[in-house]
Formats: sequence, C-alpha cells, structure tokens
Amino acid sequence: MLDKFLTNIRNNLLFRQNDFLLLALSGGVDSVVLADLLHRGGFHFAVAHCNFSLRGKDADGDEQFVLRLAEKYKVRCFTKKMDILQYAKDKGVSVQMAARELRYQWFEQLIGMYGFDYLLTAHHLDDNIETILLHQIRGTGIQGMRGIAGKKNFLVRPMLIFTKEEIVRYAVEHQLFYREDISNCSDKYMRNYVRLNIVPLIRNIQPNIYAIFQKNVRHFSEAEELVNTYVERVLQEAMRSENGVFKIKKSVLIQEKHLHFVLHHFLSEFHFSDEQITEIMKHCYQRVSGKKFYSKTHVLIFDREDIYLLARDKTKFHDEYVANNLEELNLFSEKYQFDVMKMEGDIHLKDGKNVYLHFDDIAFPLKLRHWRYGDKFRLMGTSYNKKLSDIFTDKKVPLHLKDEIWLMCNSKDEIIWVGDLNLVNDAYKVRDNTKYVLKISVR
Amino acid sequence: MLDKFLTNIRNNLLFRQNDFLLLALSGGVDSVVLADLLHRGGFHFAVAHCNFSLRGKDADGDEQFVLRLAEKYKVRCFTKKMDILQYAKDKGVSVQMAARELRYQWFEQLIGMYGFDYLLTAHHLDDNIETILLHQIRGTGIQGMRGIAGKKNFLVRPMLIFTKEEIVRYAVEHQLFYREDISNCSDKYMRNYVRLNIVPLIRNIQPNIYAIFQKNVRHFSEAEELVNTYVERVLQEAMRSENGVFKIKKSVLIQEKHLHFVLHHFLSEFHFSDEQITEIMKHCYQRVSGKKFYSKTHVLIFDREDIYLLARDKTKFHDEYVANNLEELNLFSEKYQFDVMKMEGDIHLKDGKNVYLHFDDIAFPLKLRHWRYGDKFRLMGTSYNKKLSDIFTDKKVPLHLKDEIWLMCNSKDEIIWVGDLNLVNDAYKVRDNTKYVLKISVR
Repeated sequence: MLDKFLTNIRNNLLFRQNDFLLLALSGGVDSVVLADLLHRGGFHFAVAHCNFSLRGKDADGDEQFVLRLAEKYKVRCFTKKMDILQYAKDKGVSVQMAARELRYQWFEQLIGMYGFDYLLTAHHLDDNIETILLHQIRGTGIQGMRGIAGKKNFLVRPMLIFTKEEIVRYAVEHQLFYREDISNCSDKYMRNYVRLNIVPLIRNIQPNIYAIFQKNVRHFSEAEELVNTYVERVLQEAMRSENGVFKIKKSVLIQEKHLHFVLHHFLSEFHFSDEQITEIMKHCYQRVSGKKFYSKTHVLIFDREDIYLLARDKTKFHDEYVANNLEELNLFSEKYQFDVMKMEGDIHLKDGKNVYLHFDDIAFPLKLRHWRYGDKFRLMGTSYNKKLSDIFTDKKVPLHLKDEIWLMCNSKDEIIWVGDLNLVNDAYKVRDNTKYVLKISVR
Repeated sequence: MLDKFLTNIRNNLLFRQNDFLLLALSGGVDSVVLADLLHRGGFHFAVAHCNFSLRGKDADGDEQFVLRLAEKYKVRCFTKKMDILQYAKDKGVSVQMAARELRYQWFEQLIGMYGFDYLLTAHHLDDNIETILLHQIRGTGIQGMRGIAGKKNFLVRPMLIFTKEEIVRYAVEHQLFYREDISNCSDKYMRNYVRLNIVPLIRNIQPNIYAIFQKNVRHFSEAEELVNTYVERVLQEAMRSENGVFKIKKSVLIQEKHLHFVLHHFLSEFHFSDEQITEIMKHCYQRVSGKKFYSKTHVLIFDREDIYLLARDKTKFHDEYVANNLEELNLFSEKYQFDVMKMEGDIHLKDGKNVYLHFDDIAFPLKLRHWRYGDKFRLMGTSYNKKLSDIFTDKKVPLHLKDEIWLMCNSKDEIIWVGDLNLVNDAYKVRDNTKYVLKISVR
C-alpha cells in the first residue's frame, strides 16, 4: 500500500518529498493510516485536530489519542476546542456548516502561521462514490461526477485511490490503533443513507464498483479540464476585467456555439440561477440596454454592446444617507469625507483632489443618494437644468457606474454635487461672498 | 399534455408537421399514448409492430391489438413475425441482442422502402433515469450521463419529457386501452433491478428526482456537445481521411493539452480499450515507427510522423492464399484476376493495367501472402536480391500499406511478383522464348 501511495503522489504531482504538510487528523482509521503512510514515506508533516466538544468525554478522548499519536511519530500536534453550537447560533448556520467553516478557518490560520505547503485530508474511494451519488441525487454538473478533487489549491487528498476496506486492512496488518470513526459532519444523514442503502444495492449488480467508479472519475476529471479550457478560451476573448468589474462583449458571445453552457459554467459561480442564465442568454442576442440581473452576491447589467458583471456593493443597496446637522455630516465616510470650514485665504480651492461648495445656502437635511429617472442638474457655468442621464451619456459613464455614483442633494432634493464626476451645481459654486465652504475629499 | 408534447417537438426541432413518421408500437401504454398524441397533433404517421413469438398467444394478442389501434387512427400498420430464438442461435448472440438487431434491421428496411423521415420510440423520463443509472453502474462517459438521446440521426424520442405516471394518467383520462407493458428486452434484469430497488431509494431522499435528473440531462447534453466540438476541432487539424484510411499527424496531437481525453473520445468508437488508448498516447510523444494496436475492428499503426487508422480488412487476417494447380488460381478474386495464356502475337504485354509473368518456370503451389521480415526481391533489370523492406522505403510505401501489399511466391517461397507496386522478379519477366504467360489483372 505504501508503494501505491507514493506512486499516486508522484504520478499526480500531489506534493513533493520536502513539502511541509498539515494533516487533518480525527483519530479515525482513515487519517490514522494516512499519518502512518506519511511517516513511513519520510514526509515532513504536522497534525491538526479539532475538538468540537459535541460528544463530551468521547471528544476529549479523541484529542488525547491524537496527541499520543503525534508523540509516537514525533510530529508537532495542533489541537483546538471549538464551540460550534455557539458559532452556529451566532451565524445562523447549521451545525454541519459551522463545523466546516470553523475547521477550515483554523486550518488556514495554521497554514498562514507555519508556512505549510498543503493541507491533507484522508478522504477515500468509498467517500468519493458516496459524494458522486449525492451530487447526482442533488443535481450535478461534470465536476459533481468526478467527485472529490485529488488536489485543489492547498487541499490534497492522497487517499482517494484506496477503498475503506484497504485502509482498515492496512491498519490491522500494521497494528495501528484508531478511534471509532467520528461521523463526517457534513450532510451526515444523506451520506449515511447512500452508504448504507444505495451503495450495497449497486454493488449487488456491480461487484466491480470501485474500478468502475475510478474509471468514471478519471473520465469526468479529464472532461472537466477540457470543458474549463474551452470556456476559458471563450471568456478570454469576450471579457476584460477592470477594478473588479468584468466587461463582456456581446458580439463575441453571440458567435459562440455553446453559449448557454459557457454562461452557465461562468455565471453559476456568481450564484446566478439556471432560470436567470437562460434569460441572460436570450438578452445577449438583443441590443437592448439597461436590463439587470441580481444574484445574491453579484449584479449583471446589459449595456448596448457590453455586459458588466460586478459584485453587489452592500453600501449601494443602502440607498440613502441623510445628515440632519453638521455633526451627522460624516455620513458616508467610506469614500468621501465632508468638512465645513470658514472661508479663509489659505484654502486652496483648486487643489484638484477636493471639491468645495458654497455652504451658506445649503439647508439641512443633506442627502446622499443614487440617480433616479428624471433627475436634473445645473452644470457650472450654465443657467438651465440638464437631464442627469444626458450628462452621464455625454461623459460616457458606463451603465453600471451610473448607478454607483453618489449625488448630494439639499433639503429640496435638488442635486448640488455629483460624486465621481465631481460636478458642482452652478448655484453652489464658491463665490467671492462665500463665508463657509463644504469641502468634500475623495479618498 | 398535448401542448407540452407539441412545444417539445417545436423547441427541440424533433420533427416538422409534415414529416412522415414511423412509430414503433408495442401496444404498451407508452407507445399507445404516443400514437394518440401524434394523432391529435395531426401528424402523418404509420405504425410498426414486431411479433417476436416469444410469448405465444399473448404476443399474437398484442399484434391483433396493434392492428385494431391502427384502424382506429386510420394509419398504415406494418407487422412482422420474427424468430429471434433462431436468429440468436445462428448469430451466437443473446436473445436481447437478437431482438434489438432484428427490430432495427426491419425498421430501417421500412424507412428505406416507404421514405419515412423519422422512427419514433416512446422512451420516457423513467426509462431515462434507469438508463443513466445503468450507464453509471457499468462505467460511463458524458454521453452516458445524458442518457437516451432525444434525437439521433433518424431516431426520435419525443416522450422523454414525460414521466411514466403522466403517461398512464393521460391514458386513463383519454380512456385509451393498452396491453400490459411487454418487458423491454434489452438488459431486462439489470434495468428491472434499478427500477424496483435503486430508484425508489433515491426517491426517498430526493422526491424531486424527475426535475433533478432532467436538469442533469440538460447539463450533460450541453457538455457533450461542447466536448464534441472541441474534439472535432483538434481532429480536424490533425487528421486527413483518404480511401477510408485516417492519417493523423503526431506533431499536432502532441501540442494538444487534453490529448488523452481527445484520443479516448475518438478511438473508443473504434473499439480500442482504455489501456490501449493510454499506451497509444504515450507513443504519440515518440518518434518510433512500426508499433501497431489492434481493436476488434480496426488497426492503428505508428509511422515516424503520422499515425494511420484503418479497418481491419478481414482478408488481411486470412494470411495466405495457396493455389495448387491451374484450377485453383483464381485464389484471390477480390482484387486480382489471374489468367494463364499461350504467348501469342496479339497479347499486348505493355498495356499498363495488367502484369505479365513468364509462366513456364513457375512451379505450383503458388502462394499469395504478405511481407515478412527478411523478405528479399530481385528487381527487374538487376542481378541481385534486395531487401523488400528497403524497396518499400524507396517507393515511399506508408507503413500501413506495407502490410496490405500482396506478394506472389513460388513453391520455394521466392517472391515472383509484388502486388500494388506491380514489380516483377527479374527471373520471371517475359522473354522472347516465353511460351505461356501469367496475366494478373488488377481491378
């Protein structure tokens, strides 16, 4: 088994002999066998164990066991008690989710602090078969059919080639002690159901289940890589990224033969739903601008020629900031700073970075908000109001930015200043008789 | 249900209103409902029913039922009795395979004779879920996960969007009579096992099984199309086809990022095994020639720069043809014709198409065979033997053709003529004193 283990690591470039590895060690047979293989393989590793305190004495026993095991192999051992019930309550997530989040947060901390190259978990072939069936039952794409990745970023699963039976046999042969497997917290019920009910039925008619699923996994891993290459090639041609905003050319998209699939592959990562993606595809063929699609994290906006994809700025959905008096005027401190100053000789009104307004006539409450249909604005040096949307068009403001721009309005909801574009309403420009100035600094 | 049926046909371009359709009608609820939908949809169709005579009176009852149904809809009905047991015995195939082959042979005949545009079968969503699970259990690629194709060549399955339950409900609502479903012959045991044991378990934890599998099917159909596009693009660049022989450039293949997958996708259709394909990929990176891989139907041959893929010619594997006397000399009538003639003035020895040999000294048995390592040959006009492999190289014979060329040898196994290259051994050229000539005509 050691030979097969080493060959797998070498052939699939999982890690190198002198990498520094962190092993997630529960004390169950899988991770105990992995620890032994790492030790015999002469690898440089440490172990980390989470004590979720969910099972009282039993959990503490696991922790003691892991500490002794680390001693045996003379490797460093990190343990941490975690109160997942409290975390789950605080964050409003399930206990499973809490356990997962807390574990990985801690692992990442350890990796950052000690410079580990990889985090190893002991997932094996039986886990993978269950995972694949679960994915299928819940609805899956290609990545679901290839199951657990052998290597993804800093996460490595070098035991995926072994069956549970092989692992237990190795433990018995090498007289390794282990604790009864603590149940895998994530999707415990469904997974156990698949393991205990469905897998045995499949095995009845397919005794070769391991070889078949390994073949399936290989096939779908390769297919997934090929699909990624294809989609990346299309997106590379169609898309530019600037300041975290993706700009996607419609003209390139509509030439793509497999557009629905490409959009799906790309947009589902940004949490757009199947139905939205189908709608989005239809819009690609139209020269209509202004349509928006919101996912829980992102917004996709159709302009005439391009599509913009950007993160939903939380501040943006907080639509208005109101200041009722001078004290409240630091209302939008993330990007802008507001100061009211007496107009004196040493104020350099034309310093480029900052904007100065004639404050004497400004009446509270002041309001920061985004543009609305019908908004008008009086440009400096003009004596009439112009539609703000026309001004945006003149200044070539892309659609998605139009909605991001903050406007400062007076108590009558007249726009006195247009943020980002730094336009001052002619009525509020600083004059000779200005006594107080409102200084707006853009950070 | 009719609306959904028509929408499906329209949206997925399954067939057009005025196409002429052939419906495979067993008499079971699925095909009976399909017949009714076709009738109500105003389509132009006929029905075909196979009577496998496997279940005696019951099978004849089905046939009678189908005949009456055709009368009801006023459509033409083709029925045929088939002795599948005899066919299975003759061909040495399973009863399932025999049923399948006989059905489709007959359907194709009908299509050819009557000019049907499409053959329709009544496979539904439950069938598809079973098929997908079966594929997965037996090992699958992407096409296995998308299950039964809604449309492939002349075959159309317009009922894949319906569940069995929907179909039965429709039959009840419209008071359609039907015969108890005769069991689907192909993989009967495994399919029933999946239907009765595995599907209900999945449904326990996923009541939404139909929606989920439909989503999976859609995803994998799209993924498969994308993969096909990708592979075709690579092959188009790497491959030329001439006279049924594929010539594939190694130099193009080795630049391909997903070579294993591409080769697998392409070569598994020619019945090469997974292990062979992995070996074949390794050989692509080497400039070694001469290596061959045989599948049950094809052979793949590595030359220095190119790879040849061609059908295994059955005659080729019949390695030798021997003629013991003049009567047997028509030994290889597929490509060559042999005639022995008295040498007379009106024989035009230089007619370009045919070859003439000095027959007086040729002793039976004559033999036609392929080249072997060490073969030598005396070119016309020379007085020494030259290695046949060197002659092939001089004449730039591609490797795969080298093995196809027939050699005629005399009783001492000396080569007297090299087919295709039309080379005559100097000792057997026609001379002034030749009394009999052996004329070889190449067809």
